[in-house]
Amino acid sequence: MKIIETIEEVRQEITKARTAGQSVGFVPTMGYLHEGHVSLIKSARKKHDIVIVSIFVNPLQFGPNEDLDRYPRDLKRDEQLAKEEGTDLIFYPSVTEMYPEKMPMTIHVTKGVDVLCGASRPGHFDGVATVVMKLLQIIQPDEAFFGQKDAQQLAVIINMVEAFNIPVIITACPTIREEDGLAKSSRNVYLTEEERLEAPLLYETLTYGADLIQSGERARTKILKILTERLQEGSGKLDYIDVLRYPSLETTEEIQGKAILAVAYYYKNARLIDNYIVEV
Amino acid sequence: MKIIETIEEVRQEITKARTAGQSVGFVPTMGYLHEGHVSLIKSARKKHDIVIVSIFVNPLQFGPNEDLDRYPRDLKRDEQLAKEEGTDLIFYPSVTEMYPEKMPMTIHVTKGVDVLCGASRPGHFDGVATVVMKLLQIIQPDEAFFGQKDAQQLAVIINMVEAFNIPVIITACPTIREEDGLAKSSRNVYLTEEERLEAPLLYETLTYGADLIQSGERARTKILKILTERLQEGSGKLDYIDVLRYPSLETTEEIQGKAILAVAYYYKNARLIDNYIVEV
Repeated sequence: MKIIETIEEVRQEITKARTAGQSVGFVPTMGYLHEGHVSLIKSARKKHDIVIVSIFVNPLQFGPNEDLDRYPRDLKRDEQLAKEEGTDLIFYPSVTEMYPEKMPMTIHVTKGVDVLCGASRPGHFDGVATVVMKLLQIIQPDEAFFGQKDAQQLAVIINMVEAFNIPVIITACPTIREEDGLAKSSRNVYLTEEERLEAPLLYETLTYGADLIQSGERARTKILKILTERLQEGSGKLDYIDVLRYPSLETTEEIQGKAILAVAYYYKNARLIDNYIVEV
Repeated sequence: MKIIETIEEVRQEITKARTAGQSVGFVPTMGYLHEGHVSLIKSARKKHDIVIVSIFVNPLQFGPNEDLDRYPRDLKRDEQLAKEEGTDLIFYPSVTEMYPEKMPMTIHVTKGVDVLCGASRPGHFDGVATVVMKLLQIIQPDEAFFGQKDAQQLAVIINMVEAFNIPVIITACPTIREEDGLAKSSRNVYLTEEERLEAPLLYETLTYGADLIQSGERARTKILKILTERLQEGSGKLDYIDVLRYPSLETTEEIQGKAILAVAYYYKNARLIDNYIVEV
């Protein structure tokens, strides 16, 4: 497995692969890999000749008061995990390599970002779209793999690929969970022991909401009231809970068809998100 | 020469070319081709196996009070000209093909657009960058050719390719002029006979400014005062005249190194632009 830090070198490797007629599967990450990422790498490994994992904590997608500086990092462990799963190449650029100067332009997302994380993290998805556009241009993969856990990010990327006609297949992989239901996340490491014990509350609330819907409750306001009350039993602070049409992320007062239940919740040092898709 | 209206078909053609190891040169246009475009096609023809010309009047880059609806079109003549110059394929998509729905995100340009056309046409370069990004993703050319006449557009596109690491070479071709100096433009067709006779004033003013600079005048304010006075002799209305660092398009009170003299001027039914690069 190679670890490459420059765009030029990674391009050379990709040109070699292309010339040899090999297909490229790509897993973009911010590192601190967990089983969620591993499942993405496994999917890429099954389908492609070459598997590339990028590790880049993208400053553009962090707000001024967010956790950029203390986002967890452990390259040695990431290397080992990626290697075990058969990754061919880790692309590990520095911030200067990705942004040698301030971006003279960015992708500005206007659809589907007035809700969920888009509402509480202004500019976040502009940063996500911008870095993913760059990575897709650098790597030019046949297929890129993203986790369903970051549902709104996934929607933005699917929209971007379609809107800009980027020649890549975007594949979503299911959320990987701990045994007690907590969605795997690099940020789980910041939970205190007590918070960790309590955190499955998020997933329980989502599945409770899904049960409500499945058993006939269709009124968004009523569902959200019930779920909010459940979440208020936790020791953290609710950012949002919502139920929206999926995948359009449009607000609807009456649930029908595919819907996404999504939650964001603040513990002392970690903001956790989770979601659950239901169809009626 | 093929004329293709859908993204899917043009992609098939490009895949064929790629599989055959052919290089692709691309000339994006809004149609109504003139000798300026012809020089771009000639450059592409010299260097590449396949030459693709796109003809698409991009609504996103026109403001609400601009000339989108009456932008000149003549596909038959364009076809003939393109064919004569050895074009292999015209990509001629409809607005619905390019924008099946409102773009959920666009490229938002922040650098180099507070001056020149960017100042008088807000959002124009967002529209340009967005459509060029789409076209580059659809065509995936080895090299794309743009005219130096649209100098600010060229700067935005060079910045975009660099910022997003788009794997394409951008080549600028010199402005092509009428015998009396007027820059060739699709919009020249809208000039009255009298305006057409007067319009070389723009180029004369730019070259007069260049002479001023070459002969030792370096003060931006003074140069602009002199050039503005000359332009006020015309029957139209000045939009802007400016002299900026080139290619950064930064304002400087004291001209040094490479500079661009640029002008935009309104006649009754046509807004003309021109520019001239000078080095001291």
